[in-house]
Amino acid sequence: MEVSLSEIKYDANGLVPVIVQDADTNEVLMLAYMNSESLRLTMEKGETVFWSRSRGELWHKGATSGNIQRIMEIRVDCDEDTLLVRVQPAGPACHTGERSCFYRGI
Amino acid sequence: MEVSLSEIKYDANGLVPVIVQDADTNEVLMLAYMNSESLRLTMEKGETVFWSRSRGELWHKGATSGNIQRIMEIRVDCDEDTLLVRVQPAGPACHTGERSCFYRGI
Repeated sequence: MEVSLSEIKYDANGLVPVIVQDADTNEVLMLAYMNSESLRLTMEKGETVFWSRSRGELWHKGATSGNIQRIMEIRVDCDEDTLLVRVQPAGPACHTGERSCFYRGI
Repeated sequence: MEVSLSEIKYDANGLVPVIVQDADTNEVLMLAYMNSESLRLTMEKGETVFWSRSRGELWHKGATSGNIQRIMEIRVDCDEDTLLVRVQPAGPACHTGERSCFYRGI
């Protein structure tokens, strides 16, 4: 079953949350956001391109660090307002150097 | 390493996105939202309690369907604005009856 790009529901800021998961280990790496432009670029490049909410600009993950995330699969949830992107990461997802951003408990 | 409850950063609506993952299979099941009250209840009950944005009320997952999600672990991301909840689900996460809400590709 497939969802078309036009069915994706962006929030009031034009963003959709994106869960990034390691396609080999199934580890959840990070949560980030895409707008329609970054999703288009993600599909075009085959690498994750997010919208950085803090910097207010497109963010090609790994463009400076080399830690790109190669897209293996993009999945959509039941109400089309969240994406699950399964990737092969070239390095750590987290800016701290941790493999996953979720390296701490509560 | 541990994060205290007071360090969690809620958005302008008082919500934090929560990735729900099956603790046994590592499958990503759904994305939902919690406010501080639902997080407190989640930890108290040991079962997921979300904030339903569509209904504007607390949502004890499985309270009517029986498909509760037993909390195994709660993790926090590097900037403390997303939670990863690892659960043992008593049944499908999705209202469609699918095990995961991410049952479709793009």
